[in-house]
Amino acid sequence: MSTKVTIKDIARKAGLSPATVSLVLNDRPSRISEQTKEQIRALAQEMGYHPNYAAVSLKTRRSYTLGLIIPDIRNDYYASYAKGMEDACQKLGYTMILCSTNSNPERERQYIETLSSKNIDGIALVVTPCSGDSSMSTYTSNQDLVFSLKIPMVQMDLTNYRPPANAVICNHETGGYMATRHLLSLGHRKILFISGPAGLEGSESRLEGCKKAFADYSLPWDEAMVYEGDYSYRAGLNAVDTCIIRNFTAVFAFNDLMACGVYNGLNKYNLSVPDDVSVVGYDDHFVSSILSVPLTTVRQPIYEMGKESARILIHASEEPSAEPVVSTFDLQLIVRKSTRMLQPPAQA
Amino acid sequence: MSTKVTIKDIARKAGLSPATVSLVLNDRPSRISEQTKEQIRALAQEMGYHPNYAAVSLKTRRSYTLGLIIPDIRNDYYASYAKGMEDACQKLGYTMILCSTNSNPERERQYIETLSSKNIDGIALVVTPCSGDSSMSTYTSNQDLVFSLKIPMVQMDLTNYRPPANAVICNHETGGYMATRHLLSLGHRKILFISGPAGLEGSESRLEGCKKAFADYSLPWDEAMVYEGDYSYRAGLNAVDTCIIRNFTAVFAFNDLMACGVYNGLNKYNLSVPDDVSVVGYDDHFVSSILSVPLTTVRQPIYEMGKESARILIHASEEPSAEPVVSTFDLQLIVRKSTRMLQPPAQA
Repeated sequence: MSTKVTIKDIARKAGLSPATVSLVLNDRPSRISEQTKEQIRALAQEMGYHPNYAAVSLKTRRSYTLGLIIPDIRNDYYASYAKGMEDACQKLGYTMILCSTNSNPERERQYIETLSSKNIDGIALVVTPCSGDSSMSTYTSNQDLVFSLKIPMVQMDLTNYRPPANAVICNHETGGYMATRHLLSLGHRKILFISGPAGLEGSESRLEGCKKAFADYSLPWDEAMVYEGDYSYRAGLNAVDTCIIRNFTAVFAFNDLMACGVYNGLNKYNLSVPDDVSVVGYDDHFVSSILSVPLTTVRQPIYEMGKESARILIHASEEPSAEPVVSTFDLQLIVRKSTRMLQPPAQA
Repeated sequence: MSTKVTIKDIARKAGLSPATVSLVLNDRPSRISEQTKEQIRALAQEMGYHPNYAAVSLKTRRSYTLGLIIPDIRNDYYASYAKGMEDACQKLGYTMILCSTNSNPERERQYIETLSSKNIDGIALVVTPCSGDSSMSTYTSNQDLVFSLKIPMVQMDLTNYRPPANAVICNHETGGYMATRHLLSLGHRKILFISGPAGLEGSESRLEGCKKAFADYSLPWDEAMVYEGDYSYRAGLNAVDTCIIRNFTAVFAFNDLMACGVYNGLNKYNLSVPDDVSVVGYDDHFVSSILSVPLTTVRQPIYEMGKESARILIHASEEPSAEPVVSTFDLQLIVRKSTRMLQPPAQA
């Protein structure tokens, strides 16, 4: 059996830097010309380069395996991210092992240690969405653990983000702005906002965007129209019960699961979507399109963020001196049937 | 640092067999008396036994890690199974690594090899639901691969089941029977059945149960009322389009996702659930209870099956001579609002 052909071997033969070869073979964005890219790919094939080695290379301590740690496997949001990452791994000759912590920071720590003992090449760490102070400090210490183990890391969103890590993010302020502006343009003024836990970057940013849209319309912002949720279906139900007295004509829920709760909460009061109340969600969860009234929502390209996370980690593991990367993704407002122009009252 | 206390050490000190100690410490069903159980647990604690070792024991080649291979992480059915298995692992001092194959048998093979190279203690292998002949032979060869690697294995359902493996199963014939009998008891006779792919054990068994319910009512079975689906949302939509001419008054979809497709398919024809058509699903997917008309369904205890799979694998890895186990779980009909008594025609 021939010995393993490395990125360095290809670089030497091509007269290029290993970084350049790594960028091309890992399909990373770069300013390298198409001609050079073709040359490198042809050379890699000719030399029999194949990044997938089941056996761990003891010399390099590389395992061609990435780890993904998420809070809850049953949440479709994380599952889509996992699927994107797995698909990219498959394409690039890596395998991915997935660990679900049940939102337990101690479990998160154990998984980091387990992955480390298996010579993992990189870890995508999705911290549990929880606003308690004590947990926050645990996340930070779990991030520190990954840093101290010198394992390349990528984070989703900027909650607790610290520069030595890479990150894939969306601009949630823009997302909050788009959703609110959509409702305002339809004539709605009494809008109920169901946020995520206070203190989480993703929720705070959305809220900033909502306020900005109100300011653009020269409308006063009313803090009483914000209900603090926790991204669960039940929070959507509870928000309706608590705030029904506020006579809102529209709801913006900061994720689709809470919007589902709003649908069924309104149902209890014989209010229908969108005739009585317009509803906007966030994420584009797969249920949004199969609801009886398909949900208008802000789509996060979470699958693509998973793919990019794999690419970032592979590049970082091959080029330990690479600068940290923060990749920003665009959000998209998807208008379905749950929002409509506010009708003036019959007696107006 | 003290050396690791093993099951054998505890057994020696207690004057019991290692198998007995393993059964108790892994929380496995057994006929061991409560008194003995207490004695073993106390001894384990006293001797400082702890099953969680992050470092791989090179001597025993044990990693205290289980692997789970599933076709699709975004399917809530598999995600629930994964969550059950992870929760049991957590309780028993193990970690679980999850691999999602995107329904690709070649990827499945790669993951088996990767897990093997990481000295995995056991693999839960959920084969891709696909009826093509060529794929079937790949699954069998992937099972063979696990056997040849001498890794304890547990399977979900009996498709391609072969005795050296362990299995967690439901009696789907009973499930099909329960659902059909429910519709018959409500007066429905024109029932559309949306099956899974022909040849898969889970689908064939459900169908047997449906036929048995018809036989119990002395009703003729009409093969034309069976639409072969593939467990996807789209299959439910298509089934309605294809079979709308058959004037069915009820639908039994072999999973909840297809039932969601039926809801929206009926919507297109201005037919409502349950006023015009009663619908029964299967699985108790989380969407079933949050639909505008909550879905009557046959609940599979998939989370509990995941927990049991972890227990079986841990026991099998500690007792390589243990007999294969097939654990059977009960199904439950959950009656919600999508089914109702058939109304006689207005002119009757």
